[in-house]
Amino acid sequence: MPSISEYPYVTTITTRWMDNDIYGHVNNVAYYSFFDSAANQFLIEHGLDIHSGPIIGLVVESKCEYHEPLAYPQVLRAGVRVDKLGNRAVTYGIAIFGSSERAAAHGHFVHVFVDRVTRKPTPIPDQIRSALASISLHSA
Amino acid sequence: MPSISEYPYVTTITTRWMDNDIYGHVNNVAYYSFFDSAANQFLIEHGLDIHSGPIIGLVVESKCEYHEPLAYPQVLRAGVRVDKLGNRAVTYGIAIFGSSERAAAHGHFVHVFVDRVTRKPTPIPDQIRSALASISLHSA
Amino acid sequence: MPSISEYPYVTTITTRWMDNDIYGHVNNVAYYSFFDSAANQFLIEHGLDIHSGPIIGLVVESKCEYHEPLAYPQVLRAGVRVDKLGNRAVTYGIAIFGSSERAAAHGHFVHVFVDRVTRKPTPIPDQIRSALASISLHSA
Amino acid sequence: MPSISEYPYVTTITTRWMDNDIYGHVNNVAYYSFFDSAANQFLIEHGLDIHSGPIIGLVVESKCEYHEPLAYPQVLRAGVRVDKLGNRAVTYGIAIFGSSERAAAHGHFVHVFVDRVTRKPTPIPDQIRSALASISLHSA
Repeated sequence: MPSISEYPYVTTITTRWMDNDIYGHVNNVAYYSFFDSAANQFLIEHGLDIHSGPIIGLVVESKCEYHEPLAYPQVLRAGVRVDKLGNRAVTYGIAIFGSSERAAAHGHFVHVFVDRVTRKPTPIPDQIRSALASISLHSA
Repeated sequence: MPSISEYPYVTTITTRWMDNDIYGHVNNVAYYSFFDSAANQFLIEHGLDIHSGPIIGLVVESKCEYHEPLAYPQVLRAGVRVDKLGNRAVTYGIAIFGSSERAAAHGHFVHVFVDRVTRKPTPIPDQIRSALASISLHSA
Repeated sequence: MPSISEYPYVTTITTRWMDNDIYGHVNNVAYYSFFDSAANQFLIEHGLDIHSGPIIGLVVESKCEYHEPLAYPQVLRAGVRVDKLGNRAVTYGIAIFGSSERAAAHGHFVHVFVDRVTRKPTPIPDQIRSALASISLHSA
Repeated sequence: MPSISEYPYVTTITTRWMDNDIYGHVNNVAYYSFFDSAANQFLIEHGLDIHSGPIIGLVVESKCEYHEPLAYPQVLRAGVRVDKLGNRAVTYGIAIFGSSERAAAHGHFVHVFVDRVTRKPTPIPDQIRSALASISLHSA
């Protein structure tokens, strides 16, 4: 189970009543909502304009492994790093933390950047690439 | 549009990527998720055990008026007060705030407390009643 | 509790695992998702282009009363009618049905139609107005 | 991209307004909701009692690859098969279909069955095991 120290960007996530499923824990689906909320927040803080910018990030793959249950009303932290930075795609490593510094769940997802109108893959803009490189654990 | 000063209990809510709908704003549905997350958080902090306690709160009515759009990745505040405190039911007044002290949306919902097993209405336990009375704007 | 015969437009809704909350029933929030999915489906079938059309419908008010619990994996029906048809706004009456012809929940929501770009209120286009009038229980 | 013929159990899923994200397509998160809704529906139809049965299925891993966009108000189909059937765990292969017989997305998730109270792993009950074996593409 990864440690929070392996994730350079950390953001806070408040849980919601409806995150708890019938078994009393945060539903497996909600974790992916934490994943894309955390990564997109990073992108937006570094220049992505989700409302009208020329490029958008589309998710082409995602995965999650669940280690410990979480439950509303816990306040969570999501850690984000870059595991692979390509020309037009990025793989984020993401983990979700409850009160422990060990991840309750971790996984990854892949964004392919495309032109908003044509939806054709397009190089990651310099400003965003540079931000993504800054949270890569490997040399860029 | 109500002011945040009219709501004695205030909690923070982080928005999520998927809260934004195709028109770029937090979907009308999500506000109700903020409503029941904020009120239940208050209840839990004051003794409600949602996992195994003998009573549970069921929603029998809810309403919301939307004044200004909100959008992920804004951090929001939800204000909660008690508008009406009955023997077995409570009406919460709730409002959602973005960066302004004026509500972006406000509404109410009604909890009827029932026995977890029989689902029959049951008096609100003293500890919770007393907490609810403390955030009523009217004398209890 | 209204009957399904009072709703001229009826559509099917499949429930989801995550609709059930910790108490084992469809969460109060999910009903509003049924409301706007059913009404927008009607609009789309009658000409609204949610992806790039010149006008969009914004929700300014919604309300729901809950009569009977529902639970995943039930298949539901949503009934839609028009309760009030203004120049730039429409009030839908909506009800959700399980296996009974009596509503498990019913309520309404109000769409104000606005220009997609300026977000200023704008008259409802003729084609859509005419469709809405056709599911009004009152003379248009 | 897998074909629907590779999935012995197929169920219908209606999309919702809020499934569409700001980019106009079903959000990546929603697919996981389709996954666990489809698989649990199969389990419930074959004897799992999610409300009070002695065992429950917990998700310990999930993954999805996205091939083609989908969008509300499309009606979808989810195909379910069993890729691996262990003593206490099952891996479902799941795919989501729009109008094509080729999957718009496919992936898997793993259920570990546990005792509802102790949450300790427990053998899959015979009735459910037998049902799961019946949708395995391999000999059991």
